[in-house]
Amino acid sequence: MDLNLVRELAQESDTKIVLLVMDGLGGLPHPDTGRTELEAAWTSHFDRIARESSCGFTVPVAPGVTPGSGPGHLALFGYDPLEYMIGRGVLEATGIDFDLQPADVAARGNFCTVDGQGRITDRRAGRIATEVCADLCAELSKITLDGVQAFVEPVREHRFVLVLRGEGLTDAVSDTDPERLGEKPPSAHASAPVGETTAKLVNQWIAEAEKRLAGRSPANMLLLRGFAKRPNWPSMPETFRLRAAAVAHYPMYRGLAKLVGMDALAVGPKIEDSIATVAENWGRFDFFFVHYKDTDTAGEDGDYDRKVEKIAEVDAAIEGITDLDPDVLIVTGDHSTPAVMAAHSWHPVPFMLRSKLGRADGCESFNEIELTRGSLGTFPAKEAMALAMAHARRFRKFGA
Amino acid sequence: MDLNLVRELAQESDTKIVLLVMDGLGGLPHPDTGRTELEAAWTSHFDRIARESSCGFTVPVAPGVTPGSGPGHLALFGYDPLEYMIGRGVLEATGIDFDLQPADVAARGNFCTVDGQGRITDRRAGRIATEVCADLCAELSKITLDGVQAFVEPVREHRFVLVLRGEGLTDAVSDTDPERLGEKPPSAHASAPVGETTAKLVNQWIAEAEKRLAGRSPANMLLLRGFAKRPNWPSMPETFRLRAAAVAHYPMYRGLAKLVGMDALAVGPKIEDSIATVAENWGRFDFFFVHYKDTDTAGEDGDYDRKVEKIAEVDAAIEGITDLDPDVLIVTGDHSTPAVMAAHSWHPVPFMLRSKLGRADGCESFNEIELTRGSLGTFPAKEAMALAMAHARRFRKFGA
Repeated sequence: MDLNLVRELAQESDTKIVLLVMDGLGGLPHPDTGRTELEAAWTSHFDRIARESSCGFTVPVAPGVTPGSGPGHLALFGYDPLEYMIGRGVLEATGIDFDLQPADVAARGNFCTVDGQGRITDRRAGRIATEVCADLCAELSKITLDGVQAFVEPVREHRFVLVLRGEGLTDAVSDTDPERLGEKPPSAHASAPVGETTAKLVNQWIAEAEKRLAGRSPANMLLLRGFAKRPNWPSMPETFRLRAAAVAHYPMYRGLAKLVGMDALAVGPKIEDSIATVAENWGRFDFFFVHYKDTDTAGEDGDYDRKVEKIAEVDAAIEGITDLDPDVLIVTGDHSTPAVMAAHSWHPVPFMLRSKLGRADGCESFNEIELTRGSLGTFPAKEAMALAMAHARRFRKFGA
Repeated sequence: MDLNLVRELAQESDTKIVLLVMDGLGGLPHPDTGRTELEAAWTSHFDRIARESSCGFTVPVAPGVTPGSGPGHLALFGYDPLEYMIGRGVLEATGIDFDLQPADVAARGNFCTVDGQGRITDRRAGRIATEVCADLCAELSKITLDGVQAFVEPVREHRFVLVLRGEGLTDAVSDTDPERLGEKPPSAHASAPVGETTAKLVNQWIAEAEKRLAGRSPANMLLLRGFAKRPNWPSMPETFRLRAAAVAHYPMYRGLAKLVGMDALAVGPKIEDSIATVAENWGRFDFFFVHYKDTDTAGEDGDYDRKVEKIAEVDAAIEGITDLDPDVLIVTGDHSTPAVMAAHSWHPVPFMLRSKLGRADGCESFNEIELTRGSLGTFPAKEAMALAMAHARRFRKFGA
């Protein structure tokens, strides 16, 4: 739903909404058993919830489109991921919990290897250890620029983030990563006239970095891409008129939630930690986004059995949420990550919404086969929040 | 479907389409029995039709959005309710069958109570009787304005309609209803420069009305909102190339149908009256919109049992329509009005389309659970007319 329409319809209420996102939830049949991860998992609690829910599948971005973590979550927060796009630099900074300011410009960096002529021979510098990356970032943090601060923060292996802070910076700057071997990294140039000053500063910084990296082989050069500023989006609490909390352990998801104005609560890595945090903060918020990462990690590792186990772990803990008796409980994922693919995928994502004002569709269990009987059908993930708002009686009537 | 595409595809034919709208049809389970109104009702005829129909659910406006009567019907007529919006004043005038001219400006009025300082103490003047409202409107109808006619028509209780008729009037005029107690009603002002003249006339009229209402406590003042002109929309008969009749007893629905160019036939309040009217006019029209109000009224009253009865009454009479053998028969609602909510709701609306050219999906009965098996799934109500047109062979092929 268009956020302007949300703003028009949203009204305050004392109802509670819980959005439980099991990352990469959707799956595909195991070649030996023909059963998906959700079919194989012991999910007696989820099955009971399904029997009381309106069920269906979400399409995260568009049919056939495999989403990254950003688009998958933004859609569930009600932000059309084709309209609300996050630059790579911002996503990377968000992912390490870097506190980006509105005027900052962030870029994703790779340490790479160049030969004697400066031509790239390895775009990832042999995937140096994260500790080596941290040392290099510490060295590059010493570089000074006129009137502009340059932060260099390690991410993982060869990846880092460069953040420039100062007045008049823009993100209209081209990548210095040719994404090919055998070429010299091009200089940054302005992708619009307004980017001239920033491009010049970036090139100064690269020239200085190149000197300091000389002899640090394999990481003797670097590549920058995805220059971006923190987006200035409508805030979820203001637009939806609710107090919104993110209960997420991983920085990336905390960061995404903060980009839409949620409060990111401190929480440990386990589902029990998340549920305890929801319970402790129950009175303080109207909306809880609870993120569970391990299903996606198992899927990306191609570990079918572990994904099955992780689903069952959440199922075993879910009563901690249902005991709080939220007015609306949604259980879904941000995208599918079938273990047989060992990757994110485009497959529609299992979805159920339980509410006293909801229809129970007669789905007997929570899995990809049974949910085809759901009344919600296969619908855009960006509509999920509107359904939550309606069932929480937080939307007024449209038209007379 | 976009109406330009409809216009491109529509072709004449000798086929007949009947759209039976049972207002507020969709429901929710009764807390004691777990059955919706449609599940509980005796609907042997509807069930037989369902077995021969393509089935599903419509979303009237957008997922999670609860429609008023206007948007719900416009969608079924093929007009996107987010694009074709009706101002409150026009809807109110339409609802009392006032014959709005294209240049007229209409506003909804409330009689209200103000204290000695002119501050609002009751926005509805204690909900005065409709007869009192009619007397006050007769008095205010005597007010004269330079070059402009002012019609004042009672609606119900404290509600009335003001219609200004004259040259150069616009609806760019702000409300005089602060929608709060303890404030004086603000003057009307132009919401765009073009509204200056009309706002001035409105304020002149209010000043004169205030004098005439003095001492008429509790209705000693009035509030105006929703200034609007009759929209100039594409006509349904021209766009869809069919002769369209509305068989509706209530003025609101007759008015809505007339706004899209249908002929509103005179008809009594009962379903038998409607069916007789369809039969009598069978040769004169290609498309019949048949409106049945009582299901919604029962739902809004929170009267589950009466809603069940009213559904069964329509079922018992429906053979009067099927005996006419329409090429396409659609049975649906404009929105849901679950008796347990005693209000309109956002829930998708049961829908079935029977045609010799249709697929029968194997739904055994006409209710919210069984229709989840339908091939149409859950789709926007604004697409219903396109399906009707196709099954009536009134759309030509798109592209070569």
